[in-house]
Amino acid sequence: MPYATYEHQGRRHVGRVSGDQLIPLDGLTELGRDTPTEALAAATELPGQAVSVDDVYLCPVVPRPDKIICVGLNYLTHVGETGRDLPDYPVMFTKFASSLIGPRDDILLPAESSQVDYEAELAVVIGRAGRRIPREQAAEHILGYTVANDVTMRDYQYKTHQWLQGKTWDHSTPLGPYLVTPEEADVSAAGIRTILNGRKLQDSDTSRLIFDLPTLIATVSEFTTVLPGDVILTGTPGGVGYRRDPQVFLHDGDEITVEVDGIGSLTNKVRREA
Amino acid sequence: MPYATYEHQGRRHVGRVSGDQLIPLDGLTELGRDTPTEALAAATELPGQAVSVDDVYLCPVVPRPDKIICVGLNYLTHVGETGRDLPDYPVMFTKFASSLIGPRDDILLPAESSQVDYEAELAVVIGRAGRRIPREQAAEHILGYTVANDVTMRDYQYKTHQWLQGKTWDHSTPLGPYLVTPEEADVSAAGIRTILNGRKLQDSDTSRLIFDLPTLIATVSEFTTVLPGDVILTGTPGGVGYRRDPQVFLHDGDEITVEVDGIGSLTNKVRREA
Repeated sequence: MPYATYEHQGRRHVGRVSGDQLIPLDGLTELGRDTPTEALAAATELPGQAVSVDDVYLCPVVPRPDKIICVGLNYLTHVGETGRDLPDYPVMFTKFASSLIGPRDDILLPAESSQVDYEAELAVVIGRAGRRIPREQAAEHILGYTVANDVTMRDYQYKTHQWLQGKTWDHSTPLGPYLVTPEEADVSAAGIRTILNGRKLQDSDTSRLIFDLPTLIATVSEFTTVLPGDVILTGTPGGVGYRRDPQVFLHDGDEITVEVDGIGSLTNKVRREA
Repeated sequence: MPYATYEHQGRRHVGRVSGDQLIPLDGLTELGRDTPTEALAAATELPGQAVSVDDVYLCPVVPRPDKIICVGLNYLTHVGETGRDLPDYPVMFTKFASSLIGPRDDILLPAESSQVDYEAELAVVIGRAGRRIPREQAAEHILGYTVANDVTMRDYQYKTHQWLQGKTWDHSTPLGPYLVTPEEADVSAAGIRTILNGRKLQDSDTSRLIFDLPTLIATVSEFTTVLPGDVILTGTPGGVGYRRDPQVFLHDGDEITVEVDGIGSLTNKVRREA
């Protein structure tokens, strides 16, 4: 099933997505720490309170993850364009929850950066806590999938060898639009692409991930307990703006789409921060 | 005033530290998001419920920070021993809250790492939310100071060029013992040291920070909103175990102390994870 986190008449809800309707789930206010796999499956729908998706605010599909772990250099084409060596262990960094925005929010360009870049990514949401999860059991810990645009301020990312300050600007990173459960999604070879103002700039598929999803979950859970609602951004394919010739960056008024086939599509306007 | 977060008879409290007594503050359960500077200053003490510090469990002084931002390479002596260039912008990475342990907890050595290292650090706790805080206003956003041992699994840290997996093992990082407010602490030139089984291995003072506290707060808050309870670990001086000859790592049964004069001292046993 696809699910959304949304706000309607000042209250936050989790809803099951049915066509263009959102059917709220009794007692659940947002996807995250309090919606492990079993709780989401067992929740009672309130069809009498269904609303149109056009009449709500769509939140980041997980608004407040305990952890957001991002994987860098996880497609060969992207490793190649960066000129780096092929990693033999996933390259990982983090974002803060305050970087997340809803699927229909504007991406804010901060005044300080002139190199704001896009990165289309498949995101995995954890549904069951675990530590030292073996690869072969990793699937049991997945609540579902969604899409992220891992928006990155390149001039800040490369200020030092650690990337944090380029990766977690407030209000930069769309996550959504929906959570799609594993029963409904095949992410073994899903097309993934970026379209900026009608121009296709990334175009790959998830079969090309260097470290697959079970490996990523096993790797992360070796050192930290993953919790329901934790989000893993699995990396972006080649074609990022910084590595193009000429380089491409986001500008005020742009419209950018990142999408993963079968999971969802995020289209956001780009706006210079006031 | 010094403050602690502690558990007594199954409940969590914030207490003001008075000698060896903890005087609970009415309505506050832990230092963090819900204890901005004003709330802490205005809280009512409940002296009739004072307990001895020996009769409680001391939590990480901020048990669940929204963000933990760590600064690397912020003392000349440490930059020198790593062979890296002097940074012109703070090198930053993160830990997750699940890495924190209480001031009297054991540091757990995971089976997977054979290079667990210490790092004595002065930690700053935010007391007032802010974004793009100018250096000259940064002091207004400080709730207080505490001490951290930024325990690091070196063999994991250097698996890739990003350090996350070496920095945030569950149950690795003592934080405390107390929060000391700015009125009571002068951290402009406070001694900072590490003592492992009686042997002094780090010995410096905080006047040698390359990026001082106002600069760190201004830098972090440029890209993300700092919140009450957010913790900034300000970096470690030279003398870490990995850079010694011969190298020094933590072993089962070790006792390690990290301390900052006027702020506090953390002594933890080291124990191989069962």
